[in-house]
Amino acid sequence: MKAARFHGRRDIKVDEVEPPQIRDGQALIEIEWCGICGSDLHEYLVGPRVIPTKERPHPLTGAVLPVTVGHEFCGRVSKVAPNSKLEVGQPVMVDPRVFCSNCHACNSSDTNICEGWGFLGYNSNDGGGYSEYVAVKEELCHVLPDSVPLSEAALIEPLTVAMHAVRISGFDDYRGKNILVLGGGPVGLAVIFVLKASGVGNIIVSEPTVRRQEQTAKFIDVVLNPREVKIGDRCRELTDGKGPDIVFDCAGIMPGLMDGMDALRRGGTYVNVAGWETECIVPMQHFMRKELIFRASMSYTESDFKGTVDDYVAGKFKGFEKLVTARIALDDIVQKGFEELINHKDDHVKIMVTPKRELLVG
Amino acid sequence: MKAARFHGRRDIKVDEVEPPQIRDGQALIEIEWCGICGSDLHEYLVGPRVIPTKERPHPLTGAVLPVTVGHEFCGRVSKVAPNSKLEVGQPVMVDPRVFCSNCHACNSSDTNICEGWGFLGYNSNDGGGYSEYVAVKEELCHVLPDSVPLSEAALIEPLTVAMHAVRISGFDDYRGKNILVLGGGPVGLAVIFVLKASGVGNIIVSEPTVRRQEQTAKFIDVVLNPREVKIGDRCRELTDGKGPDIVFDCAGIMPGLMDGMDALRRGGTYVNVAGWETECIVPMQHFMRKELIFRASMSYTESDFKGTVDDYVAGKFKGFEKLVTARIALDDIVQKGFEELINHKDDHVKIMVTPKRELLVG
Repeated sequence: MKAARFHGRRDIKVDEVEPPQIRDGQALIEIEWCGICGSDLHEYLVGPRVIPTKERPHPLTGAVLPVTVGHEFCGRVSKVAPNSKLEVGQPVMVDPRVFCSNCHACNSSDTNICEGWGFLGYNSNDGGGYSEYVAVKEELCHVLPDSVPLSEAALIEPLTVAMHAVRISGFDDYRGKNILVLGGGPVGLAVIFVLKASGVGNIIVSEPTVRRQEQTAKFIDVVLNPREVKIGDRCRELTDGKGPDIVFDCAGIMPGLMDGMDALRRGGTYVNVAGWETECIVPMQHFMRKELIFRASMSYTESDFKGTVDDYVAGKFKGFEKLVTARIALDDIVQKGFEELINHKDDHVKIMVTPKRELLVG
Repeated sequence: MKAARFHGRRDIKVDEVEPPQIRDGQALIEIEWCGICGSDLHEYLVGPRVIPTKERPHPLTGAVLPVTVGHEFCGRVSKVAPNSKLEVGQPVMVDPRVFCSNCHACNSSDTNICEGWGFLGYNSNDGGGYSEYVAVKEELCHVLPDSVPLSEAALIEPLTVAMHAVRISGFDDYRGKNILVLGGGPVGLAVIFVLKASGVGNIIVSEPTVRRQEQTAKFIDVVLNPREVKIGDRCRELTDGKGPDIVFDCAGIMPGLMDGMDALRRGGTYVNVAGWETECIVPMQHFMRKELIFRASMSYTESDFKGTVDDYVAGKFKGFEKLVTARIALDDIVQKGFEELINHKDDHVKIMVTPKRELLVG
């Protein structure tokens, strides 16, 4: 079968490989769609960082590069192990995580921060989403009803990232809270959709690029350009002088951190959902004087995934599918996917990849 | 009267000044003892930072340098305003904070992060602790019983800093928790005393200097030297492989931050109590992978102060007075105080200053 594999920095090739074999408790999934994630792009540009190498194989799976990439994927059950509850042909969205179920974190249900943390598409020999087939633990397959088109279902993964971030922010009740989201990319938009689905209204977004501003403005009234206005001052004007209660950082850059911590109200919470390519230097004048809380949000747990699938199926994230800016064939993933996102970043939010060329018709 | 005033970097002089006049609601306090705080030393070395200058007067008090320094002080009521509840001669410990009682934070009882935040001893024209008299809001004077010697009571201030940090860590229940304290200086020891008074047993301290290791070892079993052992590894050995649940950073240096975030258990909380002289660069590999919470602890509130005074009077911090390593006269504050702490830092934990030379006898 075909599989786009990471061989090294800026070196992804569509190779011919053996389809993965399923083991007990696994199902073989025939992939329909897989989204390109910012983390994939990051790894393509500066990796291998998350992807394991011969010098540092993955502690749990033993995987080393080349590995098949892609972790935001959905498809159909193609083969099951004995006694499976799944049926061949069922449409499923896959929770692509790898975890040990055995460490202190897993024993506390915090599988998102498992000591042996990993993802199909980065750290596994069972394959990834930019291919024809992948072997997945049955319990991580979420069966979808026919009402949910698989062409959109892969978006459940970034929504789950957002669901987790919103859940762990420390706020049980968002009513009356003011929120600042840094970055109108896929994760920023996912956070906005999750917040809106929870009934949160007072959302401000800071996004510097025009295309993403336009995209974001379809869903949110207040979209600020940090190159034109001072985000902290404008946020205070919009919040009775107080500043937002919570910042979600979906950008991971120093100007955003400075703006966000400047904007936050005294005692406010800064949730980092982003991957950082540069150093993250905390502005102590804001952090200490305002006694801020700076917390990390790391991927998601089973319950986040299940909750997001349920909400997605219930139609709570209607409109999120609009952020798909291109659909491409697996064969074209390097030029029309990764290189396109590098060279025309501002033209895109989410690019979807399929190994089934016939799905691109129309 | 005599007052040690900050005129500029490394320029503190004992000047002859007019005693402050009290206004409505204030009392004049005749100072007996005032401790030298790490923040005082920091300001002496790299200030004016907290101390206001002609270019940036304090927003609330309008104060500019030269200002009388010192904020960890106690003394006796010397003069009261009409209708005061205080009596002349009463021994008092003073909450030295300046706040507006009017901003969003103050209205939420978070006076510690008031927009007009300040301290007697940094930002006020009402005087400071390294002098003979200071004018204080009556409600910020905590009357002490005769059983508490004023020679020790000034230690209530650093204990209150610790009380606040322990309270806002996010843990309501410390039972069974493992704690790592970075730094065995006055604030680190204060955190240890507050934790011990709350019945917390599993405390590990990391401290690089010999004198402070010895000092700390009087109160805590596990004192590690970060120059000799890898703090993260040793902490995991001591906590069943898990790592501490909470780190209190009372050091404010990058090697400590790296050790602390390395040591923390997955999902753990890092509380920064320290002032930082250098950049604070978050180690994202620990912060994100372990989904840590990094929170600031900023001074204290009225209820922290009252609670600490009550606990102190009740004898809950017995032994804390042992960290006083020198007592000096106000006239000698520069050479035997600030310069001594710079040149022989490792020989000292807390130096106490008095304007009353007769109190030094014996």
